[in-house]
Amino acid sequence: MTVDEVAAAARRRAVMVHCLTATVSMSLVADGLLAAGLRPMMTETLEEAPVIVTAADALLVNLGTLSTDGMAGIPATVAARPEETPWVLDPTAIGLAPVRTRMARELLDARPDIVKGNASEVLALAGGKGGRGADSADTPQHAADAAIEVARRTGGVVVVSGPTDIVVTADGVAERIARGHPMMARVTGTGCLLGALAAGCLVTADDAVEAAVAAVTWLDVAGEIAAARAGGPGSFRVQLLDALDEAATTGKEEAR
Amino acid sequence: MTVDEVAAAARRRAVMVHCLTATVSMSLVADGLLAAGLRPMMTETLEEAPVIVTAADALLVNLGTLSTDGMAGIPATVAARPEETPWVLDPTAIGLAPVRTRMARELLDARPDIVKGNASEVLALAGGKGGRGADSADTPQHAADAAIEVARRTGGVVVVSGPTDIVVTADGVAERIARGHPMMARVTGTGCLLGALAAGCLVTADDAVEAAVAAVTWLDVAGEIAAARAGGPGSFRVQLLDALDEAATTGKEEAR
Amino acid sequence: MTVDEVAAAARRRAVMVHCLTATVSMSLVADGLLAAGLRPMMTETLEEAPVIVTAADALLVNLGTLSTDGMAGIPATVAARPEETPWVLDPTAIGLAPVRTRMARELLDARPDIVKGNASEVLALAGGKGGRGADSADTPQHAADAAIEVARRTGGVVVVSGPTDIVVTADGVAERIARGHPMMARVTGTGCLLGALAAGCLVTADDAVEAAVAAVTWLDVAGEIAAARAGGPGSFRVQLLDALDEAATTGKEEAR
Repeated sequence: MTVDEVAAAARRRAVMVHCLTATVSMSLVADGLLAAGLRPMMTETLEEAPVIVTAADALLVNLGTLSTDGMAGIPATVAARPEETPWVLDPTAIGLAPVRTRMARELLDARPDIVKGNASEVLALAGGKGGRGADSADTPQHAADAAIEVARRTGGVVVVSGPTDIVVTADGVAERIARGHPMMARVTGTGCLLGALAAGCLVTADDAVEAAVAAVTWLDVAGEIAAARAGGPGSFRVQLLDALDEAATTGKEEAR
Repeated sequence: MTVDEVAAAARRRAVMVHCLTATVSMSLVADGLLAAGLRPMMTETLEEAPVIVTAADALLVNLGTLSTDGMAGIPATVAARPEETPWVLDPTAIGLAPVRTRMARELLDARPDIVKGNASEVLALAGGKGGRGADSADTPQHAADAAIEVARRTGGVVVVSGPTDIVVTADGVAERIARGHPMMARVTGTGCLLGALAAGCLVTADDAVEAAVAAVTWLDVAGEIAAARAGGPGSFRVQLLDALDEAATTGKEEAR
Repeated sequence: MTVDEVAAAARRRAVMVHCLTATVSMSLVADGLLAAGLRPMMTETLEEAPVIVTAADALLVNLGTLSTDGMAGIPATVAARPEETPWVLDPTAIGLAPVRTRMARELLDARPDIVKGNASEVLALAGGKGGRGADSADTPQHAADAAIEVARRTGGVVVVSGPTDIVVTADGVAERIARGHPMMARVTGTGCLLGALAAGCLVTADDAVEAAVAAVTWLDVAGEIAAARAGGPGSFRVQLLDALDEAATTGKEEAR
């Protein structure tokens, strides 16, 4: 399937993505999914999330600003996820805090279809030390080996975000995509939104590589359109949502 | 009182609405109240919310993304609410998760002046099964009977949101308002904001039907203005806030 | 150092500010720091925040919408902060709720480099009663004595925000800045963002008075630019972020 076909199918089905994500980016993730034509579901408690996930088409687990609710709710939700429900793990800012790093590594046992992180997060996941926060100190290239190691453990795909995003399987680097606009890093939560779109694409794509490529391209193309219209990160955020909606409305995302 | 008069009085008084609302929509609710000329107060813990509510003019309880703090704080805050402080219950996404559904039904005993939900939420509140998440699978018309049943239990008003919003009392459908723009559903939290405006209008309106109609019309008119100016859901959210402010500044909302 | 120099140095160093802040304003604070060229880090649990703070350049503690996580995490994080890491205390809405007021007063013992609040918050901190919520019922002038009292206790600086912001030390009022645009109060979280910028400026300024003046001026100038371009509070928020970025990109903030 082409990028267009994966995205169009996700919109047609109005895929519902259950998102356990950073508080700080929750609103961009939800608005981004809605703009793209998908449906968000955000709830993270131990009491509710494991029930809610059974009604979702896909699951995103993002460890950013990990709350006490999330610490309890995330492992239980991953465990309660129906086997056929695909899921994405975004180990935001691991390597800095012991709780988050340990949790991310344990979650790998539940074999996420896609793991998405920047270079330092992927390095930390594979056992390295990791950088400072959501920013990545290392280049995607340096993290390729770590990504392959993680992919071997999960049997899925690892996306290492950066100036060039790489999509990795256990067999090596499957794709390189260099369309991410620098403005993307100036707005909180665009990485989280990528994870949510990837979860949505897993529902309609033929395999996880295709889903990862579709999600990265989908968001990057919207980012290119937004950057051309925006005067700064404030207007970029607004235009990014409008661009996702335009693609959803016209069904004419630019093919990669 | 006309819609204009209710809104103008709420602004003049700078009504303070204590909002226990979904994390994902907290920022739109607060910014929306501020833009409309009202004042938000957002805090939900068991330790603070029951004290804070005594300083508020009105209370909104929204069950979206119900946190552990909210699970403890919401019932206590409703119980601590001074009898003369009006309140709105927005049972977001009930029917999916047992905790939220049970809590919403118990909160009905505290007789909310207005209950606001989409068709599937109102059906779930009355004992039906409910839909998937914040979206409504059922039409408002199908939910009218359920709404009347809920209104009989609370003695208040029930607003069923949808393409046509209906305002229901124990005696039946009091009003139908068909001004909601489809773009409203493409932005997270517009429904939560409606609940907050309704809480504010309860302070100045003559009765709960008038308050509900004022709030729905207030937001719908702003939505119409915003939709005419917006290129997509990102800019719609921005324009919605500007339109609420314009009305607040000029005091000239279009009468229904 | 001039305002420009402090801001330019903070951007050059890409200062990382660990923010324990109100849920409702988290997204504006993070996006504002990114737009200004600094780096946010938001996490507040007892398990993670005391570790994360050791990797940060500066710390912001804001008591708005104080969660259970925050109640436990904030005191522990302040205690774990390396002695050389400067910090800002923003006692949002104290005076209303006993937990928050008591916590704010206890945090003064850890001698925040800058305390920032509106008049009623500073009065409450010094022992007065305080107003209703984030709005200030008292004028900055009335709070000057209270601010001096607080500054004597901390040995640092107190910023009292209002139509005219005053910067106070133990010796009295050091600066008055009257550039804050009224639109600033119509958007949730601009005060929280000021606290975060102040934390960032503490890393590069020669002293806390200079840092406070730089942060207030930095945000006020961006607010002036934004207000000139905005049609209301929705577009003001967008333009404020773009204006912070412009200054960051050109390095030409208007000097005060």
